[in-house]
Parts: sequence; C-alpha cells; structure tokens
Amino acid sequence: MTKLLTVPEPSSELLQRASVVRRSAMLLGQADNKQRKLALAAMASSLELNSGEIVEANKQDLKIAKQEGLQEALIARLKLDEAKLKGAIEGVLQVANLPDPLGTCQVHRELYKDLILDRITVPLGVVGVIFEARPDAVIQIASLAIRSGNGALLKGGSEAVLTNEAIMKALKKGLKNTEIQPSSLALLTTRKESLSMLKLDGLLDLIIPRGSNELVQFIQDNTRIPVLGHADGICHLYIDSEVNLQQALRIAIDSKTQYPAACNAIETLLLHSDVAKNFLDVAIPAFEGLGVRLLGDTVSQKLGIKEPADESDWRKEYLDLVLSIKIVNSFEDAIEHIHCYGSRHTEAIATTNEKTAELFLASVDSSGVYHNCSTRFADGFRYGFGAEVGISTQTLPPRGPVGLEGLVTYRYRLRGDGHIAEDFVSGEKSFSHRDLPL
Amino acid sequence: MTKLLTVPEPSSELLQRASVVRRSAMLLGQADNKQRKLALAAMASSLELNSGEIVEANKQDLKIAKQEGLQEALIARLKLDEAKLKGAIEGVLQVANLPDPLGTCQVHRELYKDLILDRITVPLGVVGVIFEARPDAVIQIASLAIRSGNGALLKGGSEAVLTNEAIMKALKKGLKNTEIQPSSLALLTTRKESLSMLKLDGLLDLIIPRGSNELVQFIQDNTRIPVLGHADGICHLYIDSEVNLQQALRIAIDSKTQYPAACNAIETLLLHSDVAKNFLDVAIPAFEGLGVRLLGDTVSQKLGIKEPADESDWRKEYLDLVLSIKIVNSFEDAIEHIHCYGSRHTEAIATTNEKTAELFLASVDSSGVYHNCSTRFADGFRYGFGAEVGISTQTLPPRGPVGLEGLVTYRYRLRGDGHIAEDFVSGEKSFSHRDLPL
Repeated sequence: MTKLLTVPEPSSELLQRASVVRRSAMLLGQADNKQRKLALAAMASSLELNSGEIVEANKQDLKIAKQEGLQEALIARLKLDEAKLKGAIEGVLQVANLPDPLGTCQVHRELYKDLILDRITVPLGVVGVIFEARPDAVIQIASLAIRSGNGALLKGGSEAVLTNEAIMKALKKGLKNTEIQPSSLALLTTRKESLSMLKLDGLLDLIIPRGSNELVQFIQDNTRIPVLGHADGICHLYIDSEVNLQQALRIAIDSKTQYPAACNAIETLLLHSDVAKNFLDVAIPAFEGLGVRLLGDTVSQKLGIKEPADESDWRKEYLDLVLSIKIVNSFEDAIEHIHCYGSRHTEAIATTNEKTAELFLASVDSSGVYHNCSTRFADGFRYGFGAEVGISTQTLPPRGPVGLEGLVTYRYRLRGDGHIAEDFVSGEKSFSHRDLPL
Repeated sequence: MTKLLTVPEPSSELLQRASVVRRSAMLLGQADNKQRKLALAAMASSLELNSGEIVEANKQDLKIAKQEGLQEALIARLKLDEAKLKGAIEGVLQVANLPDPLGTCQVHRELYKDLILDRITVPLGVVGVIFEARPDAVIQIASLAIRSGNGALLKGGSEAVLTNEAIMKALKKGLKNTEIQPSSLALLTTRKESLSMLKLDGLLDLIIPRGSNELVQFIQDNTRIPVLGHADGICHLYIDSEVNLQQALRIAIDSKTQYPAACNAIETLLLHSDVAKNFLDVAIPAFEGLGVRLLGDTVSQKLGIKEPADESDWRKEYLDLVLSIKIVNSFEDAIEHIHCYGSRHTEAIATTNEKTAELFLASVDSSGVYHNCSTRFADGFRYGFGAEVGISTQTLPPRGPVGLEGLVTYRYRLRGDGHIAEDFVSGEKSFSHRDLPL
C-alpha cells in the first residue's frame, strides 16, 4: 500500500456508502445506554449463532493464504477458530458492560439567571478503521463503535476478506432485531476503497489504523482526518547509577523479551557508566541465553557487547529480539538521548534514588513515564480501561493507551430564555459564572 | 500569504531558534505554579515600565501603515495606545490568577500492590502562534503560554513589527528577573519564517492561527502539526413553528448585529414556514432599520425579502451586516440544512417546545448548540474560562471556545517496585485496578 503515491478520489459509490453510515450514526448517537448495550448483546448472540459459517469462511481464507504462500506469522494472525471466536464474542459482552462513555456532564455552570451552560460527552460520528490480517479486529472495533454511539467504516486485509464478510453479515443480522440500524456499520473490501477513505473529510471523524508502522505512517501523511494511533514505538529503559541491579535486569528482560513484537517493548537500553560493567557482566549472558541479539556503542563493546550499534540503531524499532545499548555518563545524557530519539511512547527508569526518579517522570515528555517497572504495562487493558482503541504517541490528548474515551468528544449546550449578548456587553447584566453540581 | 503555494524548509537559523525555545520550555514545564505566576507578574510590570517605548513603536508602525494605505479597519486593530496597553497588562495579571492548569491528577489507580498509575496534566511543550495586525495578541499569547508552562514561537503581522519587537523586548526583560528563561519566548519577524514554522514538526506541538479564514485554511492544509482554530464560522439560528416570535427576533438581531465580524455571529436564518410571514413582517423592517442586508430563498422573497440568496450563500461567512434567510417546512429540513452547510461552530434554536429543543441539542453535532439564546455567547470569557486560546470547530476535543486546557496535555506515570508484565501474563499475579482518591 505504501508504495502507491496517490490517494484516489472516493468513488460516488463509496461516498454514497459513507453517507448512509453517517446518517445511521446520527440516529445511533441518540440511542440510549440500554439500547446500545442490547445491540451489543444481539451482536454477540448472532456471532454465536453464525459461528459455523464464520469459521468455515476463515478456513477458506486460510486455504487461499497458504496457496499464496503467506508468511507463517500472518497466517497465525489470520486464523479464527472456534476458540478464538468464542474469546472475541466474550469481548463484545465485556465492552457492553463497560461504563457508558456518553452523556457524561463535564461542565455545568450558570452564566446568568436561567442561562445554563453544560458540556456533555457525545459520539464522534463515524470512525474509519483500517487493519491488517487479524479478522477478530472487526468484532472488537464494531463493538467499541456501537458502544460509543459511533458508526464505523471498516477495511480489513484482503487475505481475510471472506472471514470479515461473514462476521459483518452476522453482526448486521444481530443488529436487525435492535433499535440500532445495521447500516451503522459497513465493510469495505477493495484496496482502492481503503485508500480513498483517507479523503472522506466531513464523512469520517477519526481514522484508526491498526497495522504496521508503514501503514500508519502512510495514513498519517495522506489524510486531513485526525488519526489515532502511532507509527514508531521506540521505548527506552534507563538504568541509573544508583540502582538495584538485579531488579533492573528483571525489568530490562521483561521490557525486551516478554513480547518483542509489541510497540511497548524497549529498543534501546541506556546504561549509566558507573554501573555499566557490573550490569553487563550479568546481563550479557542473561540476554544471550534468551536469544536476544545485543548491539552496543563503542564503550559497551569494550565491556563485552559483540556487535556494534551505530546512530541509525537509535532510531530503529526492531520489533524483535534485538536490543541496542548505549552507555551514558549522566542522567542528563540519558534524557537528552530520549528527547532526541524517542517517539514519545513509553520510557522507564530503574533507580533507587526517588529524587532522580521524580526528575525523570517530570522531564521526559512521553505519554508514559515509568519508574522501576516494565514498559510492557503500557496497555489499555493493563491500565484498567477494559478495552483499547489504540495507543497514541501524539502530544495532544487522547494519548497513551486509549480506551473508549478516544471515540467520544463533547458538545457545549446553552439553554436560555431569550438571553442576548448585548445586555452583557452594555453592562446591563453581568455573568455569574457559578458552577452547579454535576 | 495564501497565494504562496509552497512552504519553504526551515532555515538552520530558524531550527536553531526553535530548538532554544524547546530547550527553555523543558525547564519552564518543570517550574511550579508560584514561579509561573511570578513570571507573569514580572512580565506585566516590565510592560508597564516600558509602555512609553511600546506606544512610541506603535506610533511608528501606524505612520508606516498609513503611508502604505492600509485599510482603516486594519489600522484600528494595529493601534495600541496607553489605554489599550493598560487593558492588555491587566489581562496578563488576570491570566496569572487563573487556576493552574498543570499538575491536575485525572487518574489515580492501583494496578497491583505498589504499582500505582496516575495521569497528570502537563504542558504541550512549545506552541507556535501566527496572528495578524493586533499587537496586543503578543501579550495575551505570551502570558497564556508561560502560565501553562509552554514555550512560544510568535509570528505577528509585518505591519506591527516594531510594536511586536518592543513588546517582546519588554516581556523578556521582565522574565530576566524570574526563574523562567526569557528564551522560552521568541518572536519571528519575516514572512518566510512564519511559513517554514509549519514544517517544525517535532519542535512545535501546536499551531494556533489567529486571523482570516484564508490564513487558517492555508495553515491547516500545509502542516502536519496539530492546529487549534477554525476557518469558517457559519452559524445558524432556526426559528421553529412553536415560538415566541418577539423573543426569537431579539435573539436573531443580537446573533447577527451585536458584532457581525465575529465568528459566532449567524450567517443564515432558517425559518419554519408556519411562522415565516408573521416573523418577516416584523423582522424585515427591524433588520433593515439596523442596516442589515437580507438575502432570501424564493419563498422568502415572496414574503418581502428583496434580494435573492442562491446555494453559494448557504456556504458564505459574510462577517458583515448581511443575513441569508431560508424557509424550511419542518424541523428535519432545518437540521438537514445545518448538517449540509454548517461548520460545526454554534447553532441555535428558538422554540417554546421543550421536546423540539432537546431534539435539536441532541442531533446537531456542532461544538455549541443553543436553545433560546444568542449565538454570540460562544466565547471563552462568556463561558467563564477567564482566557481564550481560540475557538475550535474540529470534532475531537478540545473544541468550542478553548481556555488554558487547550495548552495542556497529560502523561501517564507508573511507579512500581520491580513489577514485570510476565507475572501478569503467566497468571501468577492479577491486576487489582482499584481507583485511589484523586
């Protein structure tokens, strides 16, 4: 996809489909909590009723994928058997039970007698989701969208097209028996459609790309619609001079090896020179024993790292059992390195000095800053959000792991009784600005 | 500016200046509430001390502007006399007294024993502000930035360059005696610099354009940095069939004429056919008496509107004493028109039917939806925010009138004692997700 340089204009058919979703989403946005919960229950039970058909469609997709020689890792992600489907259906019911993200009153203020301002959370409108391989993403995204009152345009990978279609059919069948219109959801199937989705300004309110760095980067560069997600996840662990080395090693190993393909795994270890030798003496055999390839700067090579790391390594997200190591002479040098090469995802410090820790948490401007724990905790479920829309590395909120709040916005409502601004400009009336109980 | 089609790459000098601001902003971001308040007090008193010099510089700018034949309206905005400067200095002190937007704990949660997550508000980093004419904007923006712990790169209009430089000199002089580095603020003076500001990704976190629609539109289209602001403000008032006509007219007149150049003034009046004749019989002479030019659709022309409005009028922000009028046959037609032509700024309904009003507030997806009051209330000061960064018409928060919250973001901090993810994945430990008192 990223090799295509131009994004085609949306076809009239796509515009038509997106408009239908938008119109349905407007009604969905007014559905109450109970109606949206019931819709998710209906979606779940329809998936269960049609699970035979879905698994069968997946077998077809798998067969074609194998014939076409798809990578093993991708085939594993494509696979949706009874057990995985059951898990996904349970996920729908879990999302149904999350607290309603809509209708929360955030501001409630009297501006003047009988002129009352409030700010309440409302759905975004329609979200566009572009994802690769994993067909259970359709289920997860559709349930998050409906739960939060949003329509969704979904575009999955071409290798999962039969599975995705079977899932979407089941979801829509389920919605038919509810107050929510099945047309709140639409599945796009051609690559051309997924590209022109980027030009649906005014019809789409948010794009959520779930896939490779290249996919995300391409989307960020080619749309004016806000994008929730992240391209790089270059996370760091800094091991300070005052440190419990054994604990630091445990954290380093978990941060790198617990699931190296995750965005919250570390890519670079920054090591204070005072403890470098002692740490590496134990860490090198430990990492090597776990199959981790270590690349180091010149100083660390003198301390036993066999392969060199050059400047380009500091910018690399390996997503694999590879770790680059740099020796720094001070806390400041570590911070400087992170500011220069980090991607504002998650950085951790291992130190026994509370003051140093607090300085780290205050001065590193990543969306997650950790003290004495693994970067692998950067995750919506682990944070207790129940469901995760994605992880954002942007500066503005929402950032970090984003739960349902990423799918809602707010609106100011002002209710008056003939109030006009001129009375306040002329000085005849003046604002009370009195906060009322929420 | 908008005629230039390419945004130049930043010069090495600009990159250098922006890096200095960024570095200073990192320190500023760690300054406490008291230090930032004191900085604003010092800025205010330095402005006062140097007011003679500033007013003198402004006189020079005015002289040149007149020689170059600048429009009267622009000259009025450019003018900064003793009185206006005094008002701006009072504004600095008001911003100093606003509640600290930083350090607010939004989430405080135990994930497991001794593994504590919190989410606190932090500055964005560095904001870039591009504004036209009005030199008091430098003062306002600089104080909002410092109050919220952000560095700022400011680019004002070339016609105000001497005034802006004199103001910036005074602000920096004031900061010299505080804990805040004067280099947290920088003034750019050439047009080329302001354009290449759009390419300072990684050095700027937010761009706030304050100026014409064209300026904002150009910036939105030519940067990957988030932009806070709005291009069009096409606001509507819908007068329902069940309505207090006298009150509706008062609201219509205020919404259009109280300050027609404001973005929250209405451009189009949607009028239910049941009350169209009765309303227009009174409204036409009233508006004409106030010098408002009325343009109407075919039906309203039959009811006395003299000039025609065509489809292009529904898309126009007149910013002047001009109002387009359309007769609609139903509430639904009014909503449809707003969805089609609105800019998600502010829309109002005049109705005595509470149910209709609530349906309007629930189904119009603008950032402000009003019942029986003037659209002119859409303003940060009127909402009680104390200071306004701008008004955003985007879907995602922050939207509507944005106070200091538009200049802050948040960060997740996780403090542990050697916790690793593997223990939770293996099932050895499980999350408690227990909210702690904020």
